Amino acid sequence: MTALLLIMLAGALSIVYGVYTIQVVMAADAGTARMQEIAGAIREGAQAYLRRQYSTVAIVGVVLFIGLAWFLGIVVAVGFALGAVLSAAAGFIGMNVSVRANVRTAQAATHSLAAGLDLAFKSGAVTGMLVAGLALLGVVIYYTVLVAVMGHAPGDRLVIDGLVALGFGASLISIFARLGGGIFTKGADVGGDLVGKVEAGIPEDDPRNPATIADNVGDNVGDCAGMAADLFETYAVTVVATMVLGSIFFAGGPLLESVLIYPLAICAACIVTSIIGTYFVKLGANQSIMGALYKGFIGAGALSIVAIAIVTWLVFGGFSTVLTTTTGVTFTSGALFICACAGLVVTALIVIVTEYYTGTGYRPVTSIASASVTGHGTNVIQGLAVSLESTALPALIIIAGILVTYGFAGLFGIAIAVTAMLALAGVVVALDAFGPVTDNAGGIAEMAGLPKEVRVSTDALDAVGNTTKAVTKGYAIGSAGLGALVLFAAYTSDLAHFTSNSANYPYFAGVTVDFSLSNPYVVVGLLFGGLLPFVFAGMGMTAVGRAAGAVVEEVRRQFRERPGIMKGTDRPDYGRAVDMLTKAAIREMVIPSLLPVLSPIVAYGVIYAVAGKSNAFAAVGAMLLGVIITGLFVAISMTSGGGAWDNAKKYIEEGHHGGKGSDAHKAAVTGDTVGDPYKDTAGPAINPMIKITNIVALLLLAVLAHF
Amino acid sequence: MTALLLIMLAGALSIVYGVYTIQVVMAADAGTARMQEIAGAIREGAQAYLRRQYSTVAIVGVVLFIGLAWFLGIVVAVGFALGAVLSAAAGFIGMNVSVRANVRTAQAATHSLAAGLDLAFKSGAVTGMLVAGLALLGVVIYYTVLVAVMGHAPGDRLVIDGLVALGFGASLISIFARLGGGIFTKGADVGGDLVGKVEAGIPEDDPRNPATIADNVGDNVGDCAGMAADLFETYAVTVVATMVLGSIFFAGGPLLESVLIYPLAICAACIVTSIIGTYFVKLGANQSIMGALYKGFIGAGALSIVAIAIVTWLVFGGFSTVLTTTTGVTFTSGALFICACAGLVVTALIVIVTEYYTGTGYRPVTSIASASVTGHGTNVIQGLAVSLESTALPALIIIAGILVTYGFAGLFGIAIAVTAMLALAGVVVALDAFGPVTDNAGGIAEMAGLPKEVRVSTDALDAVGNTTKAVTKGYAIGSAGLGALVLFAAYTSDLAHFTSNSANYPYFAGVTVDFSLSNPYVVVGLLFGGLLPFVFAGMGMTAVGRAAGAVVEEVRRQFRERPGIMKGTDRPDYGRAVDMLTKAAIREMVIPSLLPVLSPIVAYGVIYAVAGKSNAFAAVGAMLLGVIITGLFVAISMTSGGGAWDNAKKYIEEGHHGGKGSDAHKAAVTGDTVGDPYKDTAGPAINPMIKITNIVALLLLAVLAHF
Repeated sequence: MTALLLIMLAGALSIVYGVYTIQVVMAADAGTARMQEIAGAIREGAQAYLRRQYSTVAIVGVVLFIGLAWFLGIVVAVGFALGAVLSAAAGFIGMNVSVRANVRTAQAATHSLAAGLDLAFKSGAVTGMLVAGLALLGVVIYYTVLVAVMGHAPGDRLVIDGLVALGFGASLISIFARLGGGIFTKGADVGGDLVGKVEAGIPEDDPRNPATIADNVGDNVGDCAGMAADLFETYAVTVVATMVLGSIFFAGGPLLESVLIYPLAICAACIVTSIIGTYFVKLGANQSIMGALYKGFIGAGALSIVAIAIVTWLVFGGFSTVLTTTTGVTFTSGALFICACAGLVVTALIVIVTEYYTGTGYRPVTSIASASVTGHGTNVIQGLAVSLESTALPALIIIAGILVTYGFAGLFGIAIAVTAMLALAGVVVALDAFGPVTDNAGGIAEMAGLPKEVRVSTDALDAVGNTTKAVTKGYAIGSAGLGALVLFAAYTSDLAHFTSNSANYPYFAGVTVDFSLSNPYVVVGLLFGGLLPFVFAGMGMTAVGRAAGAVVEEVRRQFRERPGIMKGTDRPDYGRAVDMLTKAAIREMVIPSLLPVLSPIVAYGVIYAVAGKSNAFAAVGAMLLGVIITGLFVAISMTSGGGAWDNAKKYIEEGHHGGKGSDAHKAAVTGDTVGDPYKDTAGPAINPMIKITNIVALLLLAVLAHF
Repeated sequence: MTALLLIMLAGALSIVYGVYTIQVVMAADAGTARMQEIAGAIREGAQAYLRRQYSTVAIVGVVLFIGLAWFLGIVVAVGFALGAVLSAAAGFIGMNVSVRANVRTAQAATHSLAAGLDLAFKSGAVTGMLVAGLALLGVVIYYTVLVAVMGHAPGDRLVIDGLVALGFGASLISIFARLGGGIFTKGADVGGDLVGKVEAGIPEDDPRNPATIADNVGDNVGDCAGMAADLFETYAVTVVATMVLGSIFFAGGPLLESVLIYPLAICAACIVTSIIGTYFVKLGANQSIMGALYKGFIGAGALSIVAIAIVTWLVFGGFSTVLTTTTGVTFTSGALFICACAGLVVTALIVIVTEYYTGTGYRPVTSIASASVTGHGTNVIQGLAVSLESTALPALIIIAGILVTYGFAGLFGIAIAVTAMLALAGVVVALDAFGPVTDNAGGIAEMAGLPKEVRVSTDALDAVGNTTKAVTKGYAIGSAGLGALVLFAAYTSDLAHFTSNSANYPYFAGVTVDFSLSNPYVVVGLLFGGLLPFVFAGMGMTAVGRAAGAVVEEVRRQFRERPGIMKGTDRPDYGRAVDMLTKAAIREMVIPSLLPVLSPIVAYGVIYAVAGKSNAFAAVGAMLLGVIITGLFVAISMTSGGGAWDNAKKYIEEGHHGGKGSDAHKAAVTGDTVGDPYKDTAGPAINPMIKITNIVALLLLAVLAHF
């Protein structure tokens, strides 16, 4: 109980940090009246969008809440609601800080790059710490209530089901936020760029472009709120899955409670180190923004190793405590510590690889920039080549992570490694969430007519933001890849539990599941799971294309009907584009989001009808791995490729290959446009999609156990 | 023995058909002197390229021949050489017919669309029948020599290893031909289009474009020779895999010989029906080219059902003969007949779905055309969306095929279904191979200044060619998906054979392989296999981008240094582009081609070092499925997406959305450019890549068994 209280304290600390930092941000100078007017329009648009999004999601949520309460009881349904509400809150608060920090960052950037970075990063850090803190608090408080207050045993089915439902709630918000926000932001961005930059020849964020406010709204609802919900979900699901696996592997053993506390304790320790890490972010004499951010990241990482060592010592009473799973695997607590360190190393390597593939100055980005010289087509071909190639190293890193951690401590070792990866979410999200703030700051600077130097500063921050955004996505999907085994293990273990206790769970009587690859139903499951990310990504791309097309038509209409806009004598109607996109995004997000919810159920039903229960369970299990195997590659290729395209454009804008306005630049803008839905809509939404597929399968087992 | 002779007779019939039809084609009018001059340049370029390609491949081939002879004996090495030589021959002969039929088709099209179609299709039919006939002859003669002449038992290891090596030889030629030819043709096409259509504003195949001969050479070496080698490989590997599986499943049983004859007999029967089917291709009153081709396809398919029924009756003495595998699965010969029919149905469905996704007039293509109106970016976004989405239905068809055929006759039922699919290769390749001929005919018409109507006819034929090309690729990769289980089953059965006879194969003593998905080494294998198609496709795209970039520079240089070219007073130096591309393609094809050859060996070595023999075998097995699971989707998305892009451009050129020269058309040209390496280089080369990975794994087992 003391441990649980300490963990809660760490969670609370992140809230305190958040509240304090919000005040620091708000105290900064909010700039001129014109800047505040623009920022106000962005804020209103973003809040209106989020209200609509949450109202729509609430309908789906209520239906699922009732369904869960009906099939699995009110306690489980409450877990679901808790996960959903906290995930939504993380996005909501993060976005609300972001829409206030943007204008203050623009103002700070009028003084210096360092001041701009400082404010933008602080705003990002609020989101980061709230994501980690709320997720940890949600899991630990709910767990404490179930175990310590209501008196359920730590490995009780109700506790497991409740925690899984909490993850489901978080994932549900996340997929809607990622997709809806992604469609909004990229519809605005693509549409605005096409008609503004390419057709009318006006710069990005030019106030004459009627889509420009919508573009800036999009940064907040997609890149900030959507990302926050996504990482909240990844964090919560990982901790929950590790606990579920621990409760199964150490059921009835003397160390069960320690094993369940351990992942929570790692997260708690890393929240503290992440907060300390944020204070390491300072622009050095070399003016390297990425260097400043790395200082924070490396600081947090190094401290985390020490902190996790201490936590391991405290939870297990030393490094040589021997743990034995119910499946007979034996390892020491020291081995678990090594697995956690391996998780941190995997994180670091993924960061390095992603920076290589998306940072300006390395071969992938410069190769796309060079290919732009020969036209639109070669730019896109080279971008696609980079996007495909960029999947290899992350996959090999994940493979190495599996081999090392499994060697040290079996499946539970893998779970602990993923937990350690995610425990750093606070600082990783902080690195990411500053991106939309600087993107907005640049927009506000442009629209308010601030001096060119300000835009240079915000552009420099923004370029780094493209890389950190890709890093976060690579990190989220990478952890999903490593976590796939954990979720699959949870599924198989649950299934084994039900089938071996079929006296209590009559539905599972006589079920013997063959997960061997030589079972064709396993291959069918792998193929069916494998197709989901492709279809899902295709739907996301279509939605953005459609939304962007509508924006183009609208902007062209305004330019045509009100010629004063281009002359600067008439003000465009910014609100219409925001409205249009809000409706489009909400409409387009629902069907793809239901795909992972319904797929496991449909797959189970079809294979059950064709080949019986046992094969249906095998096919659904294989589907969970299938969705990871293609999802991992599709997601990484999209997020890295998109980042590379964006920065290739920035690289040309820095003056290479003819600079702004050259033919190479036009080709690079096309690549950037294509990369937009890749990296900010379809790609990142695959992560929650994978999770939902897995969680729904776990809940399906829980529901069937009630029959 | 009578059966084997009859099968050889069917194979010989295809050769007779080929020789006869070549004479018909050659007898046609070869057009004016100018046309013949152009065709001569194309022919020379194509022959020079193929010589260089085969010389390079020969070096790799000799090394592998020596390795196989060393490890597995001369008989196996001879099988390898036979497969390689016949695969190369199929490509070589097909291409040589194609480069002579092109000019004759252009000339015929001056008379009527029907005449052009007739000649082009006849030329394609030669390639089609030779592919099927040579593949069948290769397998059946080699098998007859081993069994009837040398006296080995049908299920002997030497026979199995020899047949597998034959497949390996075919696959090796295929991957080089697909990749090298693909890089050549798309480097020329993309480079030529970018600088010609987009920059200089001259039409495709304009004689002023220095890349135009290279573009036409590319059609022959990539779309004709490369495709022929690919389908040869698919055909041979499928038949071999089915025979290997049969030899394992019915080892020592009374029906072993019938089971081994059955797939060969199906192929023999379908060669006859395919030849008959070619005579059904006639342009109807409605002038529908696709309709004419469908008549041939449907005719061949319907006759094949009857023919397979007869063959089943003859081989098994009726439909109710009961077969029992060594694993205890029991089914009747009638069930096998149903499985064969299911294979034909799968083929038909894949054709329909591919036509939907790539044919002008359906939603996918028109949606890309509409998206072109708003610019390059939205065209590419929509094209990518279509390409991702187009994977779903083929995957579901394959899943349904697995469920049905496995339900009727277990794994052997799946193998028979794939055999029946591939048995139609003759007519499918015929539908495809007419594409490059018409494409060339259009080019020759343009360059020789023939009347506009001729170009209209050849363009109409070419648009259908885009669809049939996509169909063939979908069919090849679809059969690979269904065949994955067969190849994987061959791997596991081989492994089981070695481990259970470890007295004879001491290397396998103590090996117990766990192929369950809960074995992390299986997941590692799936992930590693999954990354191969992505990396491979990325390399292919990069190679085309690089080759195209070089072509653009070269063409720009010629335009700059010799201004007379654009005025039409100076003749461009066509040969330089051909030379450049030949060197680039040969250079770029080697490393990606070695990826699938080396990967199984490296994977085995690494996992062996980390986790021992048993897990290494599990990981390699899982890798075989991993490469299929992502490869299937990557390949289908690339081939269908690319076809859709190409036809969206053609749809606009027909006069929609502003027609030729409009902004929408420019955007559509960009999409077409991107789609080129997608559909003709990276996408189709994935099929042989998958096969090679699988075959090398089988050979690895055979080699280890000798230690």
